[in-house]
Amino acid sequence: MNRVPQLDDIREATNRIAGAVHRTPVLTCQALDEKFAARLFFKCENLQKVGAFKARGATNATFALDDASLQKGVATHSSGNHAAALSYAAALKGIPAYIVMPENAPRVKVDAVRSYGGEITFCEPTLQARESGLESIVATTGASVVHPYNDYRVITGQATAAYELLHDVENLDVVLAPVGGGGLLSGTALSTAYLSPSTMVIACEPAGADDAFRSFKKGEIVPSVKPNTIADGLLTSLGDLTFPIIQEYVDDIVTVSEHGIVQATRMIMERMKCVVEPSAAVTLAAILEGKIEVKGKNVGLLLSGGNIELEKFVQQAESIVANSTGTELNV
Amino acid sequence: MNRVPQLDDIREATNRIAGAVHRTPVLTCQALDEKFAARLFFKCENLQKVGAFKARGATNATFALDDASLQKGVATHSSGNHAAALSYAAALKGIPAYIVMPENAPRVKVDAVRSYGGEITFCEPTLQARESGLESIVATTGASVVHPYNDYRVITGQATAAYELLHDVENLDVVLAPVGGGGLLSGTALSTAYLSPSTMVIACEPAGADDAFRSFKKGEIVPSVKPNTIADGLLTSLGDLTFPIIQEYVDDIVTVSEHGIVQATRMIMERMKCVVEPSAAVTLAAILEGKIEVKGKNVGLLLSGGNIELEKFVQQAESIVANSTGTELNV
Repeated sequence: MNRVPQLDDIREATNRIAGAVHRTPVLTCQALDEKFAARLFFKCENLQKVGAFKARGATNATFALDDASLQKGVATHSSGNHAAALSYAAALKGIPAYIVMPENAPRVKVDAVRSYGGEITFCEPTLQARESGLESIVATTGASVVHPYNDYRVITGQATAAYELLHDVENLDVVLAPVGGGGLLSGTALSTAYLSPSTMVIACEPAGADDAFRSFKKGEIVPSVKPNTIADGLLTSLGDLTFPIIQEYVDDIVTVSEHGIVQATRMIMERMKCVVEPSAAVTLAAILEGKIEVKGKNVGLLLSGGNIELEKFVQQAESIVANSTGTELNV
Repeated sequence: MNRVPQLDDIREATNRIAGAVHRTPVLTCQALDEKFAARLFFKCENLQKVGAFKARGATNATFALDDASLQKGVATHSSGNHAAALSYAAALKGIPAYIVMPENAPRVKVDAVRSYGGEITFCEPTLQARESGLESIVATTGASVVHPYNDYRVITGQATAAYELLHDVENLDVVLAPVGGGGLLSGTALSTAYLSPSTMVIACEPAGADDAFRSFKKGEIVPSVKPNTIADGLLTSLGDLTFPIIQEYVDDIVTVSEHGIVQATRMIMERMKCVVEPSAAVTLAAILEGKIEVKGKNVGLLLSGGNIELEKFVQQAESIVANSTGTELNV
């Protein structure tokens, strides 16, 4: 697939991956609606297969392969949700998924990939080692590389989340999505542009990993350098396929504090009883911190995933709150 | 209401409280079904108003009052979910809820009651002080006392959860419910007896608070003495109204370890992405510990509530796991 995904591509992807992924529910919360004097619609990709929207892109890319390619398997380097998602997609087709992971990847991520049958090759924890590890596997196996986000098939798959949201909820004034590498964001922006062009799309990003914000303002890709945020799904830089879509179809990018992310994560867990990872809570954090005015509006929020380690979250959250010099948030 | 609730009473309660409480969803989880070779149906009362099934009994008891009684308000002594639920029910009717709470009640519980407009009277942390505090308020205000569980109106309200579950899911082989004071359990047992008499009802209780188990085996109420469990919603003793219903309609009571409760709580949070309090996880703990054989069966589980303090849970869980001398559970 060599062009920006069109509406037909997204519709086709929705059909292609139906059965392999959930049509996730859209949840609302009266307490939050009252608090913000708005109507918030949460698209619950934390309830998606493998616990994150990544299942959509990985299954779409895998299922779109021709039979000859399929038999050689798929491959990626990733230590996050995409690795599990690609393993899941491959398992559904009965083909191998070759995953290159840094040797210091958290055990829980390693276990997730293994639980879906992914074949892990460990490498040194540098980008260079990961890339050369992947090249070597591809040379041996002929597997198809599926990039976590800089791949039109993946972007098309991620676009199906907002595609469903916009079919389930009419008259959204704005859709909010987190941004890391931009796969979910660019897909969301495309679906929104095609289905509901008057709906704004605003991306939310941790201030501690604000490369997308800076890229958007500067008009060129600014790489993510030493990002530091509890939202560990949002560390990566934009890609040369995702960035142009974001430039054209995203209305704005705002940044949020670590304290705001922690408070928003807790709010979703405590009020909505939904387990989400901090990366998924940056959108609500933007509302909480007043970065986006939502009063009287219908707001769609993409809850991107729910793969959280509770102990680690509590530990990090305590440290962030203790070190926060900002004013107390109105929680 | 002076008799054991009948099917018509439960049906009437369902209509009485509709609009005030959610018809909560029944969730399933493929990973858990595969793990246990069973079909598990989780009735999600963690998504109920005030975060627990207690909203059902409190609204039913309150809404059933005549106008003269209503105007004088409702009252209870409780430091748990029932206090918040009664405050919520009273607020819907625009009447006062007088809540007697021990002065050492956790701030989060105090805040919950206040957020629903409950009027709190603090007392010393003894049962005697709570009861005399309540008597004094009733003498002054004429408010109607709504006991957390030993009240047929409350039992009828709690029965509506299983009533809905049994309408939503056919052919359940067994329904599992936690047991503390027995309000949810007795209501569950009645609805099941009326709607699906061939379905078994099994109660699950922490071994560290096994008064219901001992009462059931002995044939008389054995009070809860110094209970010690992370499942802080299950500390209370059975009542003289709940116990006879449990004796007649519950098939068995099993106990679970603290380690099992922690593992089951984590499993529901990590796999199902649902926030539940430990009290809600005793039913899955019983399956996990092999106390109940579910292979090939359709199993209903009442997820009683989701009001958890994450920090406290993580802290307690770490201590429990560290001190566990049992064999490693198959998680």
